[in-house]
Amino acid sequence: MRVLMYGIGSVGSTITRMLVERGASIVGAVAQTEAKNGKDVGELIGIGRLGSRVYTDPDEALALKPDVVVMSIASYMEDMLEPIRRCVTAGCNVISLSEELLYSWNTSPGETAQIDALAKEHGVRVLCTGHQDGYWVSLVSVLMGTCFSIEEVLGKCSWNVDDFGAELAHDQRVGSTAEDFAAWNATAERPPTFGRTSLHALAAMTGLDVVESTTSTRPEIAQAPIYCKALDEKIPAGKVIGFTDIDEVTTRQGIMLRLEMTGKVYGDSESDSNTWEVRGEPTVRIHSAALATHFTTCGTLVNRIPQLLDAEPGYLSIDRLPALRFQAAAG
Amino acid sequence: MRVLMYGIGSVGSTITRMLVERGASIVGAVAQTEAKNGKDVGELIGIGRLGSRVYTDPDEALALKPDVVVMSIASYMEDMLEPIRRCVTAGCNVISLSEELLYSWNTSPGETAQIDALAKEHGVRVLCTGHQDGYWVSLVSVLMGTCFSIEEVLGKCSWNVDDFGAELAHDQRVGSTAEDFAAWNATAERPPTFGRTSLHALAAMTGLDVVESTTSTRPEIAQAPIYCKALDEKIPAGKVIGFTDIDEVTTRQGIMLRLEMTGKVYGDSESDSNTWEVRGEPTVRIHSAALATHFTTCGTLVNRIPQLLDAEPGYLSIDRLPALRFQAAAG
Repeated sequence: MRVLMYGIGSVGSTITRMLVERGASIVGAVAQTEAKNGKDVGELIGIGRLGSRVYTDPDEALALKPDVVVMSIASYMEDMLEPIRRCVTAGCNVISLSEELLYSWNTSPGETAQIDALAKEHGVRVLCTGHQDGYWVSLVSVLMGTCFSIEEVLGKCSWNVDDFGAELAHDQRVGSTAEDFAAWNATAERPPTFGRTSLHALAAMTGLDVVESTTSTRPEIAQAPIYCKALDEKIPAGKVIGFTDIDEVTTRQGIMLRLEMTGKVYGDSESDSNTWEVRGEPTVRIHSAALATHFTTCGTLVNRIPQLLDAEPGYLSIDRLPALRFQAAAG
Repeated sequence: MRVLMYGIGSVGSTITRMLVERGASIVGAVAQTEAKNGKDVGELIGIGRLGSRVYTDPDEALALKPDVVVMSIASYMEDMLEPIRRCVTAGCNVISLSEELLYSWNTSPGETAQIDALAKEHGVRVLCTGHQDGYWVSLVSVLMGTCFSIEEVLGKCSWNVDDFGAELAHDQRVGSTAEDFAAWNATAERPPTFGRTSLHALAAMTGLDVVESTTSTRPEIAQAPIYCKALDEKIPAGKVIGFTDIDEVTTRQGIMLRLEMTGKVYGDSESDSNTWEVRGEPTVRIHSAALATHFTTCGTLVNRIPQLLDAEPGYLSIDRLPALRFQAAAG
């Protein structure tokens, strides 16, 4: 399998190393930074010479005719449409970590239909996967399968602002007052949450028809002074330390899907969580603590590639593929 | 859909009620107890008259030509072979909760091949499902799909002897001495553990080839005096309060599958657990506490029926069906 890495940052580097271990041939990588141009991909990411180089011109890289392009460049359709069109037009399959494209038929229907038509025309497949595929959709869909009746599906996930640096801490409004937060929240134009597209993928995977989707946001307020490592700053009690997006999706079948995603500065005893409760007959729960999200993201993508190549051409969402499965290295 | 309930005890009764709620027609039920013979199935289980009766002669019931027979009568192949032959020969699909038949190609290869051939000859399907399907196999297979590499898969499950009465408490050796336990354990001829057949199903679902399967058993010893409700007896410190079966399956791919199943008298702070850890890159875990196993068993079976009817004839194991999914009632 000949693979082009489109995006060779932290996640792209890990995936490259994994694909090499699985025996794939890395034909090159596309980077934005001019300083990376022409470097050996393997040397750039510290796994030793691979004999393929980094390009800053995507068309030059796509001319190598890879079987699959692995894209790790952006989260939202507005940033993904052109790069995907370019890959598809060049006759390449695309697998990405773009969160919106996990299931973008509702949030960006026109663009999704464009990609779908173009992929069919060129006989290739476009898929998005990542951590959400496993922990917010595939596991939850199986958990639901152990229930006779379901009223609500409730997910609660959290991540630590301090794991992602100052820019994201500002994005999460760390240090602002409750008043400033309310003013921002009332007018902010934010792209679709990762929660919304994950719940849409879950609905599709479980045969539920989405009726309405809403997102609301509540600030997380420091109960006591707390140190924010990302900002190197002590946040006083009463100020904002992040926020929670609450996504709700109602379905024609009467089942409510809800995901609360909290990104905030953690206290000493807090760690990443991922908990799902299916309320019904019976009520059941799964919990995963301390997930190494970076690596589950990469592992899931690598495991989805053989399924992608076996699928019908078009824009694919994970509900249209076989169940997520570990793919053992050829023995 | 016309369903015959073969076994109408506690689990069979719950499934009957669920199937009626889903719009199935219950054509009758087979019971062992003469006292139930001729009674209305619905009245027997307390959901009101259904207009179909209980039989003690299975052949009389099978002459009603149900589409599906739901069997909840026994755990092991030796008790299931004849009843299944009878149903299959009568042209009926079978879905059962017989734990060995979740995946019996290794533990009872001859009988499984017989059932498979007979089912193909008669154009019907034979499947086993239940709690293990969801929590020991299907969820674990998806969890594994989020890993790039896997060394070991480790499950730990427990159940409370006090939930199941005196007979099972004796079977779990509650109250015996460590010496008595060792003597019993050295010579006991026990049927295949539920753990072994579940791990075989997991291997099949994840494309792993079983090389060797072993089961070992260790006693659980009271650390302090503990009251056993099932026996209405205080067990002194140092005596046996149950045991743990440790099933290990090695695979050609080098991945070890292991399940420790503990059945013992619980202390005050203990509850049923179901934890799986996949050790690899990365190491990931899921945990489910306080599962209502009776209802997950029934819900899972009900959700598997449409998949059963869509499958190719033969003996089926869950790895050959689509992923476990909640089946919403027709809207």
